[in-house]
Amino acid sequence: MKTLGTLGEREAIRVIDRIVKSDVPVGIGDDCAAMDIGDKYLLVTTDMMVTKTHIPKGMGPYDIGWSLVAVNLSDIAAMGGRPLGVVTAIGITKGHPIDFLEQMVDGMNDCALRFGTSIVGGDTKEHEDLILCGTAVGEVDKDKILLRKGARPGDLIVVTGCLGRAGSGFFSLKRGLSLKEAEDQLKRPWPRIKEGMVLGSSGCVTSCMDISDGLSASIFELSRNSGLTHEIDYALIPKASEVCLAFQDAERQKDLVLNFGDDFELLFTMKREREADLAALSEQVGCPLTVIGKVTSGEENILIDNGRREKLENLGYEHFRIRKA
Amino acid sequence: MKTLGTLGEREAIRVIDRIVKSDVPVGIGDDCAAMDIGDKYLLVTTDMMVTKTHIPKGMGPYDIGWSLVAVNLSDIAAMGGRPLGVVTAIGITKGHPIDFLEQMVDGMNDCALRFGTSIVGGDTKEHEDLILCGTAVGEVDKDKILLRKGARPGDLIVVTGCLGRAGSGFFSLKRGLSLKEAEDQLKRPWPRIKEGMVLGSSGCVTSCMDISDGLSASIFELSRNSGLTHEIDYALIPKASEVCLAFQDAERQKDLVLNFGDDFELLFTMKREREADLAALSEQVGCPLTVIGKVTSGEENILIDNGRREKLENLGYEHFRIRKA
Repeated sequence: MKTLGTLGEREAIRVIDRIVKSDVPVGIGDDCAAMDIGDKYLLVTTDMMVTKTHIPKGMGPYDIGWSLVAVNLSDIAAMGGRPLGVVTAIGITKGHPIDFLEQMVDGMNDCALRFGTSIVGGDTKEHEDLILCGTAVGEVDKDKILLRKGARPGDLIVVTGCLGRAGSGFFSLKRGLSLKEAEDQLKRPWPRIKEGMVLGSSGCVTSCMDISDGLSASIFELSRNSGLTHEIDYALIPKASEVCLAFQDAERQKDLVLNFGDDFELLFTMKREREADLAALSEQVGCPLTVIGKVTSGEENILIDNGRREKLENLGYEHFRIRKA
Repeated sequence: MKTLGTLGEREAIRVIDRIVKSDVPVGIGDDCAAMDIGDKYLLVTTDMMVTKTHIPKGMGPYDIGWSLVAVNLSDIAAMGGRPLGVVTAIGITKGHPIDFLEQMVDGMNDCALRFGTSIVGGDTKEHEDLILCGTAVGEVDKDKILLRKGARPGDLIVVTGCLGRAGSGFFSLKRGLSLKEAEDQLKRPWPRIKEGMVLGSSGCVTSCMDISDGLSASIFELSRNSGLTHEIDYALIPKASEVCLAFQDAERQKDLVLNFGDDFELLFTMKREREADLAALSEQVGCPLTVIGKVTSGEENILIDNGRREKLENLGYEHFRIRKA
């Protein structure tokens, strides 16, 4: 009998995609679905957080609440959207203190307000362990929507902020390294709402997604959507200063930067002829925008490391896969 | 230490409501949240389904998928809305057969299409047992929205369809009574989308909600929202024919009709002077609309049974409450 353990999460999504019939402008497979509501698109995204596999030790209830809202808003950001509201469904045990619920909802509320929206509703159910599901809705002008598809050969590959900080925070918590800022980044992700809206309005972005599952996984996802290959230079990737504090070994550092994820930065492609606009855009949003490579029409996705070209492996976090011993 | 077990689900929602700050036109506490999007309201609702407490034995994966979508669409119906799309988050074990996922998604897809909408996206996560979270979005003209508040003294209390069928289906499955139609009603709830839209457009409805948690709980909820009391006559309640097949005992029958829930009918109040319009509205939607009582300004909600007036008890299904021995 074929079980879900023999598929990966992405393959399971393809199973679902084959069954579901929908004629919305953007359906399964992008950061959000988009529906036509007159002169705008309505954006919707949902994300389930399972305590045991998704919530690192060291995260308190406030952080958990903040994260749930942040990861959903990050999907709205990846489409260039303005958030309209967030609903949160909470599965929680009878034994959880009321305090825990209050702090968690505090985190949800604060994150939503910080990014210009609010918690508008939800559901609460008794469950054997803590499980959360958030859904964010947003809107975007039709000509400003950012999609995973759309890159063309020669486009530049750009990231917001820096990578590896959340991963460094994870290992800091695990090993007691006290990398405070990195731990905060992991516990309280920062959705790039403003950045997404500015990028959507700029007219120079050809494809975009958020880096929730790691840079390599996101590169593969953009590549799958455009049908083109991507070439990135490891030396160009903006790395969090904590990466070399988390690991001395260069290979472990590389793994953190390329594959860990949870940074919730935006990865996008843009028209090469607009490269000169990057500085102004970066200043406008108050966030670094760094070119890390280019879109090509090669055979495979490439990582340039110390001048050496190697195949970029897709090693992002994926559920269901039964790891082989 | 105060835990969630000492609160009920509704009290937990009040805890959340006290913390959350939002200025949307309709927030926590109605069937859906409503957000302003120009000349319409955007409606959003979310519902988590936990296998062990929410999914009766005898329901297959197709039924589970159908139900998840149906209960969310029922909330859109209760606000008079037109559904725009549904997203579903699925927590599922590695050991579930792929077949199971396929049939469940089939049920989701069929239910959405049946009610004029579609599954537009979702999330899939590995979890120790099956847990589902659906979110529906919809829209409604601002002047046609149906809310839980708004009833006035003298208004008539009306229900769509009949009550007790899903509950009869539950006991039929449990005891092997083979009440096929009742079991189907339980397994594949029928959201009153068309009915809600027609009622919203009629201009005669003053408050509305769906009866997911049972008639008594819904009466109390409308009462809490209007600040008025409600008086219903047991003899007037349209009862499913299966109720007397499920139980011979009149008290058990009454409990089923008043408290079981899961029928997903609409309960609404309407202007008394429009009573004559009910027949035409009923014909338009192809569904019985039955007056079962009236809105009053008394001391408590009243049930008239065989001419005897008694206090209506709020015995609807509620989570978290630790039952006293």
